[in-house]
Amino acid sequence: MGRWEPNARERLAKAALELYSERGYEQTTVAEIAKRAGLTERTFFRHYADKREVLFGGSVALQDLFVNAVAEAPGPAAPIDAAAAGLEAAAAVFDGRREHSRQRQAVIAANTELQERELIKLASLSAALADALRRRGVTEPAASLTAEAGVAVFKVGFERWTAAAEERTLSQVMRESLEELKAVTAGG
Amino acid sequence: MGRWEPNARERLAKAALELYSERGYEQTTVAEIAKRAGLTERTFFRHYADKREVLFGGSVALQDLFVNAVAEAPGPAAPIDAAAAGLEAAAAVFDGRREHSRQRQAVIAANTELQERELIKLASLSAALADALRRRGVTEPAASLTAEAGVAVFKVGFERWTAAAEERTLSQVMRESLEELKAVTAGG
Repeated sequence: MGRWEPNARERLAKAALELYSERGYEQTTVAEIAKRAGLTERTFFRHYADKREVLFGGSVALQDLFVNAVAEAPGPAAPIDAAAAGLEAAAAVFDGRREHSRQRQAVIAANTELQERELIKLASLSAALADALRRRGVTEPAASLTAEAGVAVFKVGFERWTAAAEERTLSQVMRESLEELKAVTAGG
Repeated sequence: MGRWEPNARERLAKAALELYSERGYEQTTVAEIAKRAGLTERTFFRHYADKREVLFGGSVALQDLFVNAVAEAPGPAAPIDAAAAGLEAAAAVFDGRREHSRQRQAVIAANTELQERELIKLASLSAALADALRRRGVTEPAASLTAEAGVAVFKVGFERWTAAAEERTLSQVMRESLEELKAVTAGG
């Protein structure tokens, strides 16, 4: 087997999620993930630090997309509209990935350690968004509150999008969740 | 030394925070905390599971206060006003405790494990608030979004209240942060 394997990273992620869904996260070993993907453990560790990180391999890219969209929103855009641009950019990543996302959500919901890792991911996203908003000239506490609001919409919207009967796109669900947040904070 | 020590729980919490601030959280042992408080390790473990939980001993009581105030808000109150009642009840707990809270925030900011524990506390609070709002008849996603908004205000407000130059009460800062959240989500 050569050192370079086409799509190794994606194959490992797919194999890991399959095994976590079938047997449970705790019961799955890196050796089993590598075997299912037709790769070696050594190749696994070239791509992921451990079996937990397979589930969070896209976090940095997602955060970058979200933050860049906030940074590049039109100059006069209100903070919440810049955050909305970030939500749109983030949502686009998940086109065609609802079933994968549902499986991932189920695996995370079944394990406390993974839930904690997910909370850290969202807190990191919120801090990065607040930073991007401050660089746009938004002052505190508006920057932090807008960032928290954006992450709340992402979190709640994502949960709704992965619910059993949901058929709308993530982008649609995010937009509706943002409108709903605006309505509740307006006292509606 | 008798089995029952007056104010043992508070004395241990005070001693722990002092030692964490002086020497760092990692460098402090349970034995040292007990000694500083003039108590035994055995007494420590009657009150706290470990040295981390000393910093989170008030979390359950805080969550109960917050949630009960939401549950008991006047029947016709809009969800965000019920959440505001919860913020008021929670803020009252911290009267006269700003210096303690500042020290605690500094200890937590210096340690990743403690930051994670704090995130779990806030996620648990958000889930409990959403539950209380649903029991008031608030539907989804409004219940979850209002709960997330309430926790965002609590988090950002608390950080502002513990900032160096801040002199207003936590209640005032929370109210202002909620108004600011309303302004940013309204696109202002």
